[in-house]
Amino acid sequence: MKATGIVVEYNPFHNGHKLHLNKARELTQADVVIAVMSGSFVQRGEPAILPKWERTRMALAAGVDMVVELPVSFATQHATIFAEEAVRILDAIHVDTLFFGSEHGVAEDFTLAAKKVVENEARFDEAIQLALVDKKTSYARAYTEAFKKLFGQNLLDITKPNNILGFHYALAAQKQNPSISLHSIPREHAGYHDEEANHDQIASATAIRKLILAGKLEEASHYLPASSIAILRNYEGPFLSWTDYWSFLQYRLIQAGSEELEGIRGVSEGIQNRMQQAATKAQNFSDFIELTKTKRYSNARLQRTALQILLNARSQTSSPYIRILGMNKTGQQYLSLHKKNISLPIITTVSKAPAGLLEEELRATNIYTLAKGLENYQAGDFHIPPILTL
Amino acid sequence: MKATGIVVEYNPFHNGHKLHLNKARELTQADVVIAVMSGSFVQRGEPAILPKWERTRMALAAGVDMVVELPVSFATQHATIFAEEAVRILDAIHVDTLFFGSEHGVAEDFTLAAKKVVENEARFDEAIQLALVDKKTSYARAYTEAFKKLFGQNLLDITKPNNILGFHYALAAQKQNPSISLHSIPREHAGYHDEEANHDQIASATAIRKLILAGKLEEASHYLPASSIAILRNYEGPFLSWTDYWSFLQYRLIQAGSEELEGIRGVSEGIQNRMQQAATKAQNFSDFIELTKTKRYSNARLQRTALQILLNARSQTSSPYIRILGMNKTGQQYLSLHKKNISLPIITTVSKAPAGLLEEELRATNIYTLAKGLENYQAGDFHIPPILTL
Repeated sequence: MKATGIVVEYNPFHNGHKLHLNKARELTQADVVIAVMSGSFVQRGEPAILPKWERTRMALAAGVDMVVELPVSFATQHATIFAEEAVRILDAIHVDTLFFGSEHGVAEDFTLAAKKVVENEARFDEAIQLALVDKKTSYARAYTEAFKKLFGQNLLDITKPNNILGFHYALAAQKQNPSISLHSIPREHAGYHDEEANHDQIASATAIRKLILAGKLEEASHYLPASSIAILRNYEGPFLSWTDYWSFLQYRLIQAGSEELEGIRGVSEGIQNRMQQAATKAQNFSDFIELTKTKRYSNARLQRTALQILLNARSQTSSPYIRILGMNKTGQQYLSLHKKNISLPIITTVSKAPAGLLEEELRATNIYTLAKGLENYQAGDFHIPPILTL
Repeated sequence: MKATGIVVEYNPFHNGHKLHLNKARELTQADVVIAVMSGSFVQRGEPAILPKWERTRMALAAGVDMVVELPVSFATQHATIFAEEAVRILDAIHVDTLFFGSEHGVAEDFTLAAKKVVENEARFDEAIQLALVDKKTSYARAYTEAFKKLFGQNLLDITKPNNILGFHYALAAQKQNPSISLHSIPREHAGYHDEEANHDQIASATAIRKLILAGKLEEASHYLPASSIAILRNYEGPFLSWTDYWSFLQYRLIQAGSEELEGIRGVSEGIQNRMQQAATKAQNFSDFIELTKTKRYSNARLQRTALQILLNARSQTSSPYIRILGMNKTGQQYLSLHKKNISLPIITTVSKAPAGLLEEELRATNIYTLAKGLENYQAGDFHIPPILTL
């Protein structure tokens, strides 16, 4: 069985994801498509708009064969770690190809760029450090500057959000297993960060979440496949955003000593002091980000750091594992075929997982389900089994 | 000017307090009555039903001449520390007499008991430790047992809540300044812990809070002086209980590592693990206490420990100081007369206080004002000046 891996958030699963999924199957001629998906919290440093179980249902309903959770300790970090660990899971589960959408669209150039970086690692690191010395440049910008300086303007534009991710997938594949073959298609519709829904049936997840959070489910439905609409309509819980967790973050920032926040991921250079000051003044989360931001720290970085504080995520990253959130028959077949050769622990029942392995995930989900209206999902990581479909 | 000190919570100020206050003035023939009052949180380990500013107004309106805050790090602890630090403040401010209500009612017996304990301290400590070895007895019970064993049944019944406090006032006075003269009257009406209001015009603060929290302000008014009723009616904020802080406590217990909770006051013998377990299951604060309790830990002890966790109160206690919450003319006269001879720092404007001295108080009040509806009191410790009346 030929397997293709994709890295997703499905926050929520929309028509653009459907296109991407169909293309993945078609262009790679895969028998099985395996999605590594963020769980309760997503990479831009916010809660997922609805629980991972609902998003897994959406994925399976739309044709994904297996959904594996990207552990929260990787899913909520910058592109390098996010991509490295997603690829580690896909490699462990023996995908043949890795498929991703990107602004650039040509997989070979990603591989080429990744090779160049691997071959020139020391020089590249040096150039990044040099760009950082002014103490004002963000890490993301320093990275891009160093890349341009060493490899020129034309190789790959890694200022574009999906090119960045694609590049890091390629880099991870290059380091972990260069035999994984990469495929990409250009993302033509709907910029990743578009705030408004502009196109006929395709809108960015950001725009769709904005509609859903404003109670405009009807309008959002234009951009969603029927299967996602049905799941959204049946969902009885609240749609989630930082609004639901702001008071917890505020409380934490007020009650903690500054030194207690050291050692939390992303906390460096005293950023926690700015955050603690801001917490006593801000009335809501966007106020808080406004009050905290500086040239050095992008909003995305601040959101991610705020999330790590909310989750009390300490520096040591977790060990990787393969946690199955859902499978159809094809996914189940594939798993039985390969499970003897998978080097990472496979988790289907959390209560049977090695002690401590999922500690961070359980804590994150326990915090996620503190939001009002999520009572049915409380301790869900323990009692909800993988979703199996025909 | 002759000064009498009283130790109060005024949570809220009721007719029983009014009686007590009048008796204090009458029996000690004081020119000035100084109340040391708990601030945002009270000794039984809960938030005060309304902000300290409103309770200060109540005290002044009823005739107290000066209200000094008992710092939160002392106000929320067991009787020994609570009493020691309240007496330390009253002694520093040079009261001549200390007046308290008690079930027993005869001040001389409290002094006698205190003397006996001081004279037999080593034997007493030994007897307490002996009572604790079974690992099931609570400290409070061990203390009472040791007291009975050494000094007999008849000296003073320190199982009664107001006798316990009175005894600890006497003990503190004995240790700090035996020249302070003690006065007591028997509390005839309304047991301290009565849940229901049973008498004509006197009810326990517990019963009154229960009425107020149930929205029965009219009914509660039977037990309150007119001045308190007016202040309660003008108060625009919410009446507070653990219900308003439960979600913060729950969040904190879920997000913290067990070892991060060590070193918080009252956390010992792994009680935090029981609490952390209970937090993932309990739907509200009383559920939580039910799930956590054991023979060893009384509800009061658990509530106090939960509160220290909510406030992230670490072991090192704060330094004492005299923070004036309010004064009338008499109080102001008394303060000008004595302020050169007061050995503790006197705080009237928080922003001018020595750096760090009020850190714990500010944090506690910042947490207190996270409750919905208390926006007007946010950062109140900084911007609300002492309340001065004629």
